[in-house]
Amino acid sequence: MSWPPVREELRGLEPYGAPQIAPELAPVQLNVNENPYGPSPEAAADIARAVQLAATTLNRYPDREFVELRTALAGYLNGDGGQGLTADQVWAANGSNEVMLQLLQAFGGPGRVALGFAPTYSMYPEYARDTVTEWLVGHREHDFTLDLDHARELVAERRPSVVLLPSPNNPTGTALPPEAVTALCEAAGDGLVVVDEAYGEFRRAGTPSALELLPRHRNLVVTRTMSKAFALAGARLGYLAADPAICDAIRVVRLPYHLSAVTQATALAALRHGPELLARVDELRAERDRTVDWLRSLGLTVADSDANFVLFGVFDDRHAVWLGLLDRGVLIRETGPVVDGAGWLRVSVGTPGEMGHFRTALTEVMETNPMKEGP
Amino acid sequence: MSWPPVREELRGLEPYGAPQIAPELAPVQLNVNENPYGPSPEAAADIARAVQLAATTLNRYPDREFVELRTALAGYLNGDGGQGLTADQVWAANGSNEVMLQLLQAFGGPGRVALGFAPTYSMYPEYARDTVTEWLVGHREHDFTLDLDHARELVAERRPSVVLLPSPNNPTGTALPPEAVTALCEAAGDGLVVVDEAYGEFRRAGTPSALELLPRHRNLVVTRTMSKAFALAGARLGYLAADPAICDAIRVVRLPYHLSAVTQATALAALRHGPELLARVDELRAERDRTVDWLRSLGLTVADSDANFVLFGVFDDRHAVWLGLLDRGVLIRETGPVVDGAGWLRVSVGTPGEMGHFRTALTEVMETNPMKEGP
Repeated sequence: MSWPPVREELRGLEPYGAPQIAPELAPVQLNVNENPYGPSPEAAADIARAVQLAATTLNRYPDREFVELRTALAGYLNGDGGQGLTADQVWAANGSNEVMLQLLQAFGGPGRVALGFAPTYSMYPEYARDTVTEWLVGHREHDFTLDLDHARELVAERRPSVVLLPSPNNPTGTALPPEAVTALCEAAGDGLVVVDEAYGEFRRAGTPSALELLPRHRNLVVTRTMSKAFALAGARLGYLAADPAICDAIRVVRLPYHLSAVTQATALAALRHGPELLARVDELRAERDRTVDWLRSLGLTVADSDANFVLFGVFDDRHAVWLGLLDRGVLIRETGPVVDGAGWLRVSVGTPGEMGHFRTALTEVMETNPMKEGP
Repeated sequence: MSWPPVREELRGLEPYGAPQIAPELAPVQLNVNENPYGPSPEAAADIARAVQLAATTLNRYPDREFVELRTALAGYLNGDGGQGLTADQVWAANGSNEVMLQLLQAFGGPGRVALGFAPTYSMYPEYARDTVTEWLVGHREHDFTLDLDHARELVAERRPSVVLLPSPNNPTGTALPPEAVTALCEAAGDGLVVVDEAYGEFRRAGTPSALELLPRHRNLVVTRTMSKAFALAGARLGYLAADPAICDAIRVVRLPYHLSAVTQATALAALRHGPELLARVDELRAERDRTVDWLRSLGLTVADSDANFVLFGVFDDRHAVWLGLLDRGVLIRETGPVVDGAGWLRVSVGTPGEMGHFRTALTEVMETNPMKEGP
């Protein structure tokens, strides 16, 4: 056996993660869909006060059920599409990736199938691999919307235990219409339909949250994160809303005390500063729409976006475009392969200044790196 | 299918965790091996300052490789048995239970076996279950030491990918002699031998740490936690020292950004206060030894302890003893079954005042709840 003796499926794999390039080399960081606006000094000070209070009893284990935080998260969700959610319908973990892993630990596993539709979030197959769940991938339409007939067929044929549906989808920005959520919840029987709304707060006016559908489907799970709208990527707090029986089942596989007292205190303090932290979301949505319009004005193909990022293309040589931008200090993302080949790039929405740098750089780079010719 | 549609193996299971009873009802909490001494106001303030600094950039993802923290942990270990450890030999996660889960995700899995020796830490089978690793259990001697011939036989016969050996063992407090670690590392071939030193800092004078053996065995992994000696159970920081190739393999299964910027800042601040936080360890070791002596003076059987807890018995009706103590405000632990039946109880070592309460309460309770008669 070769050293180290890892599981066969892992041999030779590289860890997941966007290439990281220091801000000194790439001052305009638009590659991992972070919120460009940090917490205010007041919010940071309040977080510190909350942690200082928690720190005096850090010798004790944290509240294993984090009831205060679950209650606060339920309250927040009830202001953004939730309908009378209570603490027992809410669960949280260290980032929504841990929430997803726990969902597959409880509801996936050997002999079970998780279903997604490509192009989609590239961590999903890793959650499946790490929980020994079979990962089944359907396709999307050319505009990245769901092909509902195809989706229903796959569900009927393979009876997935979990369907993973980001809305908006990453890396395309595509929201899922409520009819599609309902249709899949009905098709899935007792299988869970997980609508991953990590970027939910950035949805356009008129795009509803799947939270509104929770009262109608007991197999619907809606996940959120504080990383994006709350500008709290560094604090790692993901959560979900679902039937209380689903939350209870996750408690069986969660590691005891998985959510530290420091994390709980930080998240609670940030929720108290919600209005201030969320005020930037509207600015980012407007900047996102301006970015879409500008890219289209260049003749590029741009996916409709309900997120804080924009997928655009199609380039003959996207790596050359990515490198050209990096040469100019702008770091964006070469996403995993999308249906139309590899000619797409994803840019996160930054501040107006950062987007100005992006526009200048892209204009220059495109002089020598053309779009793909149409068919 | 019944609702919710969890994996068959999980159906009807209760979440792991000690019964929690509020301090109002049980002011003397000696049930989960917490350090009774909280961080000083200075340490708490320093943690808060570190978090406040981190909070200003919480919109950004944390350092995925947490190099500063790994370096600091390596430095600490080199003062407690480590031999020139560097950052690439150290890994950390949210509690040593996440470290264990990651080890089994990378090195366990379907068709692979993890081996432990009962009575031992009751979370081990859950890590195995959650990673679809077969859990194989050997036995211990009547004094809870390892039966080395039996252990070597099991290893030779079943070729476990991972052997989980707490030292000191939980719930018995039994340390593993270095000869046993060496013998098992040699017997295991390319299988990993994980020595779980969660309570390592409480070991008695003359009991070495398995860290000293790392240079001799590339398949040896030593895990530690900041929960106990550093009095940081609420912050959830577990870590390990091992061959760099083992750390690298874990990076493939770790969730990206699993360790928050807040956790990293908290742990680094606590490490800066190491001497102060660790000063209490000597007091607790002395209190532990006094507790062992006192229990033996009552005629009870008491396991030798290198930990901050003591296993004692054997009672005809341990639940009655546990309840009697609880009636008197003292909460201790009914551990999982041990080899000699269920007559044992575990008490964590608290402050001298708390142990005084424990002694008074146990003296009263034993008047009506006798020890088991000898054979």
